[in-house]
Amino acid sequence: MNIGRVIGTVVATRKDETLIGSKLLITQPLNLRLFPEGAARVMVDTVGAGVGELVIYASGAAARNAAKRSEGAIDMAIVGIIDTLNTDKSWLTVYGIGDGKEDEFLE
Amino acid sequence: MNIGRVIGTVVATRKDETLIGSKLLITQPLNLRLFPEGAARVMVDTVGAGVGELVIYASGAAARNAAKRSEGAIDMAIVGIIDTLNTDKSWLTVYGIGDGKEDEFLE
Amino acid sequence: MNIGRVIGTVVATRKDETLIGSKLLITQPLNLRLFPEGAARVMVDTVGAGVGELVIYASGAAARNAAKRSEGAIDMAIVGIIDTLNTDKSWLTVYGIGDGKEDEFLE
Amino acid sequence: MNIGRVIGTVVATRKDETLIGSKLLITQPLNLRLFPEGAARVMVDTVGAGVGELVIYASGAAARNAAKRSEGAIDMAIVGIIDTLNTDKSWLTVYGIGDGKEDEFLE
Amino acid sequence: MNIGRVIGTVVATRKDETLIGSKLLITQPLNLRLFPEGAARVMVDTVGAGVGELVIYASGAAARNAAKRSEGAIDMAIVGIIDTLNTDKSWLTVYGIGDGKEDEFLE
Repeated sequence: MNIGRVIGTVVATRKDETLIGSKLLITQPLNLRLFPEGAARVMVDTVGAGVGELVIYASGAAARNAAKRSEGAIDMAIVGIIDTLNTDKSWLTVYGIGDGKEDEFLE
Repeated sequence: MNIGRVIGTVVATRKDETLIGSKLLITQPLNLRLFPEGAARVMVDTVGAGVGELVIYASGAAARNAAKRSEGAIDMAIVGIIDTLNTDKSWLTVYGIGDGKEDEFLE
Repeated sequence: MNIGRVIGTVVATRKDETLIGSKLLITQPLNLRLFPEGAARVMVDTVGAGVGELVIYASGAAARNAAKRSEGAIDMAIVGIIDTLNTDKSWLTVYGIGDGKEDEFLE
Repeated sequence: MNIGRVIGTVVATRKDETLIGSKLLITQPLNLRLFPEGAARVMVDTVGAGVGELVIYASGAAARNAAKRSEGAIDMAIVGIIDTLNTDKSWLTVYGIGDGKEDEFLE
Repeated sequence: MNIGRVIGTVVATRKDETLIGSKLLITQPLNLRLFPEGAARVMVDTVGAGVGELVIYASGAAARNAAKRSEGAIDMAIVGIIDTLNTDKSWLTVYGIGDGKEDEFLE
C-alpha cells in the first residue's frame, strides 16, 4: 500500500455504473518526507476520508475488495486514515529520506 | 484510476477478437496541472468518450470489468468523463503541483 | 494497452511448457512520437505480427486471455497490428508530444 | 519480489476491516547496494519482521496469499526475512551496481 | 516478460511456507544493450537457471503459474533461459538502443 494525501474530488456525470454512489477522491502519492511522488490519482473512498487527510491506499484487486465490488471498474481505493507514522530516525538519516520534521505535515 | 485526455484513435484491422467492435482511443495520462505524465496509452472506451475530452481511466481487471469482457485482451479502459476537478488550492501550493490555472485546460 | 515496435525474436530452448510453440517477440515500447519509452520487452505474438511492425500490446491477464492460456507463464502479448494512428494535432502541439511527422515512422 | 528495509510502523484507527489485527510496516525498497529505490511503502507483515530488518516483499495477489486473505484490501506484504545476499561480484562490477561493501548494511 | 541476468541468490530462513523449497535468485533487469534497467529483483526459478545466465522472467499470476503455485506468495519467476537474441540492427540504430556489440555480453 502507499501513503497519500487527499487533495480534492472529481465530478463525473457519465461514468461506469459500478462507480455511481462512490466518492471519487483525488489523492497525491507521498514519500516519507510527505512530499509528492508521481502524479495524483483518482480513487474510491472506503473509509470516510476527507480532503486534507493523510491516507493509505491500495491498488488492483485489493482496491475492489475494499470497495466490496470485485466486478467493479475500480483499481485504486483509500483503505485507511493515518493517525501516526512511527519511523526509525536512524534509518531515515542513513537513507537520506527524512529529516525528523515530517510531523509538521501531519496535521 | 488516472486522469487523461483523449487525443486520438487507433485503427488496427488485425487484432484480438475481443477487441473487435470496441473503440480504441489514444489517451495521454495527465498530472494535476493537466500536463502529460508518461507515454500515451491505447484504451477501450466504455462511456462514449470522444477526442479532446478529459477522462478517468482504469487498468487491469477494472478495465475488463468496465468493458464487460472479463476474458478480453483489455488492460486499460476509459471509465468516466470528467466534468470538474475540485482541488484544495492550499495543498496544491504546498506541493507545487498546481497553480490555480488548471481550469483553462478543462475545455 | 501500449504502442510498440517488434524489433526481434528470442530463442530459449529451456522454458516454461506453456511458452512452447509460441513466437517470442522482442518489442520496444514507443511514445506518440514513435520513439522508445523504457526497455524492450519479450512478449507472445497472438496476431501474426512480424519484425518491423507497429503493434498494440497488453499486459497481465489480458495477455493470457489473448494467448488463450489463462494458466500460462505469460504476462505480455501482442494483441493488434496498427494500421494508422489518428491523432489530434492541436493537442499534440499543446502537450509537446508530437510534431506531425510521426507518419514517417509508420512504414 | 523486492528487497526492502523495515523502517517504521503506521497507526490507522479507521481502516478496512481486513487490515484489522495486521501489523502495518513502513518498508523502504532497496537496490543491491542496499540504498533506497523509490518511495517507502506500507505493507502487511506475515513473517514476524521488525523495524531494521532486511526483508523480501511481494505485491498483488502474492501479498494476499501470504496474508491468507484473498479477499483482503492488501496489495503488499513482507514474505521473508533475509539472512544473506550472495551476489556474483564480477557481475556487480560489470553492471556498476555494487561495490563489495554491501555487507556493512546487512546488520 | 522481461530480460534479466541472474547475479546471485538469497538465503531467508524465515519465509512464507509457499517459498520453502524454491530457489530464490537475484536477477538484474536488463535493456537490449544488456545493461541494467532498474533495481535487481528476487524471483523463483522454474527452469533450472544458474548465476550468470541470461533469462526471461514474468510477473504476477504468470509467475505463480510457472511455479505451479497459484496460491503462493510469488510475484516474479524465471520462465526461460535465453540462447540467442535476434534483433533487427536497423531498428536498434534508429532507436539508439543497441550497437551491434550486444553478443559480447551473451556468454
